[in-house]
Amino acid sequence: MTAPTSRDLTVTEVRLTPVLVADPPLLNTQGVHQPYTPRLIVEVVTADGTTGLGETYGDTKYLELARPLADTLVGRPVGDLNRLFTDADRVAVDASRVLGQVDVGGLRGVQTADKLRLSVLSALEVACLDALGKSLGLPVHALLGGKVRDAVEYSAYLFYKYAAHPDGVAAERDDWGAALDPAGIVAQARTFQERYGFTSFKLKGGVFPPDEEIAAVRALAAAFPGHPLRLDPNGAWSVETSLEVAGELGDVLEYLEDPALGTPAMAEVAARTSVPLATNMCVTTFAEIKEAFTRNAVQVVLSDHHYWGGLRNTQHLAAVCRTFGVGVSMHSNTHLGISLAAMTHVAATVPDLHHACDSHYPWQSEDVLTERLAFEGGTVRVPDAPGLGVTLDRDRLAALHRRWLDDDGSLRDRDDAAAMRVTDPGWVTPAVPRW
Amino acid sequence: MTAPTSRDLTVTEVRLTPVLVADPPLLNTQGVHQPYTPRLIVEVVTADGTTGLGETYGDTKYLELARPLADTLVGRPVGDLNRLFTDADRVAVDASRVLGQVDVGGLRGVQTADKLRLSVLSALEVACLDALGKSLGLPVHALLGGKVRDAVEYSAYLFYKYAAHPDGVAAERDDWGAALDPAGIVAQARTFQERYGFTSFKLKGGVFPPDEEIAAVRALAAAFPGHPLRLDPNGAWSVETSLEVAGELGDVLEYLEDPALGTPAMAEVAARTSVPLATNMCVTTFAEIKEAFTRNAVQVVLSDHHYWGGLRNTQHLAAVCRTFGVGVSMHSNTHLGISLAAMTHVAATVPDLHHACDSHYPWQSEDVLTERLAFEGGTVRVPDAPGLGVTLDRDRLAALHRRWLDDDGSLRDRDDAAAMRVTDPGWVTPAVPRW
Repeated sequence: MTAPTSRDLTVTEVRLTPVLVADPPLLNTQGVHQPYTPRLIVEVVTADGTTGLGETYGDTKYLELARPLADTLVGRPVGDLNRLFTDADRVAVDASRVLGQVDVGGLRGVQTADKLRLSVLSALEVACLDALGKSLGLPVHALLGGKVRDAVEYSAYLFYKYAAHPDGVAAERDDWGAALDPAGIVAQARTFQERYGFTSFKLKGGVFPPDEEIAAVRALAAAFPGHPLRLDPNGAWSVETSLEVAGELGDVLEYLEDPALGTPAMAEVAARTSVPLATNMCVTTFAEIKEAFTRNAVQVVLSDHHYWGGLRNTQHLAAVCRTFGVGVSMHSNTHLGISLAAMTHVAATVPDLHHACDSHYPWQSEDVLTERLAFEGGTVRVPDAPGLGVTLDRDRLAALHRRWLDDDGSLRDRDDAAAMRVTDPGWVTPAVPRW
Repeated sequence: MTAPTSRDLTVTEVRLTPVLVADPPLLNTQGVHQPYTPRLIVEVVTADGTTGLGETYGDTKYLELARPLADTLVGRPVGDLNRLFTDADRVAVDASRVLGQVDVGGLRGVQTADKLRLSVLSALEVACLDALGKSLGLPVHALLGGKVRDAVEYSAYLFYKYAAHPDGVAAERDDWGAALDPAGIVAQARTFQERYGFTSFKLKGGVFPPDEEIAAVRALAAAFPGHPLRLDPNGAWSVETSLEVAGELGDVLEYLEDPALGTPAMAEVAARTSVPLATNMCVTTFAEIKEAFTRNAVQVVLSDHHYWGGLRNTQHLAAVCRTFGVGVSMHSNTHLGISLAAMTHVAATVPDLHHACDSHYPWQSEDVLTERLAFEGGTVRVPDAPGLGVTLDRDRLAALHRRWLDDDGSLRDRDDAAAMRVTDPGWVTPAVPRW
């Protein structure tokens, strides 16, 4: 038997491929998703010929950081993950330049140079874990201490949406139709249930005045009695409005997500309602935890392995939350199958994951994989094949990269407000609190 | 090239071997070390013939838990570490029976059934990591995300000690001589420096009235100017005494370790001194962290992978500490080379380890390894061989196990007060605060 040490697991190359992927016209408090959204696909290649895959945000500022950070990997063992982070601290980030660009980070909390760096590192870490797992013949979850469940539950991610993009450009018209009132949201939820078997539902709010969104959640509760429901206005409400909504919906909400912006406001809401508050906006980094937890501002942290810095950091976050009696689940931004696989592997290893995870994946008609991951009964089966258990489709990757190359630059940075101005020229990102 | 998946990493057997190892007559606030101390050696065997090693406390109450917990491993993949802990929750622990025995846990914080369980699981986890590493051809640190340093710094662990055990039994007389005053402590420190190159020094206190221990630390400061010094009375002092000692030694102490017992007392001391407080007594479980951290009771947590539940939990603890701006280093009880190797591997992966770790290992003249680990320049080199990088000496193991079998039961449970009663028949474990 050949010992696996005979394999050379030194990183020889890191390929970075920005892509633009189709995105439906989903509404949020800042505007509407553009027809295409940028993602960065990472391939880490080792001396034994293995290639590991990772994926992260693809806006220009992430791309600028990706190359110098990727270069710190080359020549090192692919499993050298702790050093990936300590070495990255030495890569200078010109924060003023990087952060001076269009800030689409409002929905992901406060943008910092460190957070950008972690978002890029997350894709490198996942790609290293994928390569390491493939080389060793172990699934990624086994490299994270092993799964404690065989399938990971996801929730249906409901959005107010237009039937088509305002600018009417190339992106194929999706088959979901419009959803701009309670009936439309319930219909969308039924489609989610029929197609994927989801049993819990999250509505992206902050789009219409609170009364309309309360009515939508009430309609969901009537259509799906007893099912967990969530509402997430992305911090669009004042403390008083948050408390009014909590009062109106307290009997049907699993939790209210980021009703108000920032830890002080969240702490005030939390102190005055028994509805649990979840967040992916006021606690988005380890540095933000201490204040939020000591003030009891949040009851559930929605981790996002991209901006928390990868799968092992997600496990660390789960340990911190467990230690402080705070729940943990998972946030999602627009992402492809590589990240869904990564989310599923790490979620499978977190013992106390008591809430279904979020995922935009059903909204993504395009992917870079040979085979899409499937939701069955609202869950994704935890892959047991080596690595992430997914395979890159190079033709698809090339086509989506070609779209990025052909873009005149207007879509290389996600800008939901710009998309909204196509239909509403006077639109500006609303001031917070909006209501 | 054979893929490593062809190896069968299923656990087929777990061997548990209690041993008694020689221990010098070291003094602490509860009494004196007995001539022999119990340890449990764990061997996890996988279907491919690999054997992994672990080590933990060997008192009777640990042994009683070890067999049912070990049985949960058999038939499972050796890398299934997360499930090891979730499954262990299902192993019923008769806490009243287990905890009803002699409690030697005072020096390790409050004893609970959960903590006993974690102490046993830690040895199983380490043995699984050792076996997994050997099978995959990777050192344990690589299974923990890779080392961020090539050597781990340890401190000289100074003890007041007798020249020989009061009962004069079998245990070989050590060559350290007595140390019962400042000159004796300085001489001991010089020997530590000469033999092992240690550059920081910790004195186990709580043995003599505080003035004598202050004098000993002052003598160390004079003999080793500028070197980091620590004093650890194991919670023997009142808040006022703690503050007096902090006032006297504030200019030379790296930190003061557990001057007073429990979080409220530690918080009061911490609030009134600028000398950092370290602990391995008031924060010994994840459940104790929230109160201690929110009250700023401690500035450094001394992890012990045995009672924190293994190497991965130690990494989680380090992440929690980092998140709350609390330092981290390592505690040590009497241990052998298997545990020193385990400590070294995990310490090598913790990025912000800013204090030299403790280790009793120089006091242990006996081991179960074919080759002892060496301290050079006060550090242990991080092993890069597969697994822990240590090899079991079966003859030594058998001999130390024979000693355990031959014991009439009087030494199978560590009892520092009983040993003290040999020379001082009226000795009882002192009430706290002692001074």
